[in-house]
Amino acid sequence: MGRASKREEIAQAALEQFHARGFSATGISDITTAAGVPKGSFYNHFSSKDESALEALRRYGTGLRFEMLAAPDRAPLERLREHFRFLGGDTVENGFVRGCLVGNFGAEVADHNEEIRAAVKEGFDRWAAEIRRLLEEAREAGDLSRDLDPQATALFVLSAWEGALITARAGKSAAPIDAFFVTVFDVLLR
Amino acid sequence: MGRASKREEIAQAALEQFHARGFSATGISDITTAAGVPKGSFYNHFSSKDESALEALRRYGTGLRFEMLAAPDRAPLERLREHFRFLGGDTVENGFVRGCLVGNFGAEVADHNEEIRAAVKEGFDRWAAEIRRLLEEAREAGDLSRDLDPQATALFVLSAWEGALITARAGKSAAPIDAFFVTVFDVLLR
Repeated sequence: MGRASKREEIAQAALEQFHARGFSATGISDITTAAGVPKGSFYNHFSSKDESALEALRRYGTGLRFEMLAAPDRAPLERLREHFRFLGGDTVENGFVRGCLVGNFGAEVADHNEEIRAAVKEGFDRWAAEIRRLLEEAREAGDLSRDLDPQATALFVLSAWEGALITARAGKSAAPIDAFFVTVFDVLLR
Repeated sequence: MGRASKREEIAQAALEQFHARGFSATGISDITTAAGVPKGSFYNHFSSKDESALEALRRYGTGLRFEMLAAPDRAPLERLREHFRFLGGDTVENGFVRGCLVGNFGAEVADHNEEIRAAVKEGFDRWAAEIRRLLEEAREAGDLSRDLDPQATALFVLSAWEGALITARAGKSAAPIDAFFVTVFDVLLR
């Protein structure tokens, strides 16, 4: 139990440090200091910084709460809007910092690390598949224009979200996030 | 002349290294090695890595060739499409790496460095203003739906582009870039 819980603490601290600092700027000692454990203990639980980054991506994926998208109580496009409202909360409430860990690793690490790139791709693929499923549901219900291909639109909406977080952080402003909601939900998917 | 040209070489090498490696992963020695100059000579021309990063952003902005957007020979939305085709060329031709330096610094550095954040914001603001001008021109020509607010739409299109480059790099695939063109030009701005 002792070991399992220490691994848990290190993994959680790694997620937070990577999210706040970025991949390259995070040292093992940042992670162990944040976890309140000796630096050497990191290697009892992870073979490398890369391995802890892959675990951070897995944990971050769980926090995206895809299960919200499957709740059958509301219309599919309402669920999609709610999903992004939930995801944007973290960025808005924290003063426009951190953004999305998947997108951050995509921008910073994907070109240089094949394992992390594959994990980022897997995260985006899963996410796009969830969005696509909702768009297909909306289409079947007659709530989505036939002009929109569900696969391309899902990929586009996901990309637009990732970009909006970056421009919001750069400007310390909700304007790009507001523009995302207005353009996607009031114009494109209307 | 000697000094000016060495500064030029270091500045160009800095742009290339930051674009290829990211900010944190680029050391001064990566820049001077790429420029073929002694490490110490960096500080004859730049006071810090941050200063060379600000210069890299300025140079990168020049390469975005906003002057293409003002050419009066074609319809505004055609010019906008051509602009993004030009910008996407680098990413597609290089095997889906590097992306946009402004967006990369936005994702990696903006939270941690106020000067770089301000320069990234300025880059995005200028870019969004150029896109907005084209959208207003298209609107006056009756080529743009009145449902679209030019300012929000410009910000949205810019964000969507930045995100598409990230998802394209993660997937090593043109699909997100294709989805950008189809959704923006064949549906949203149609």
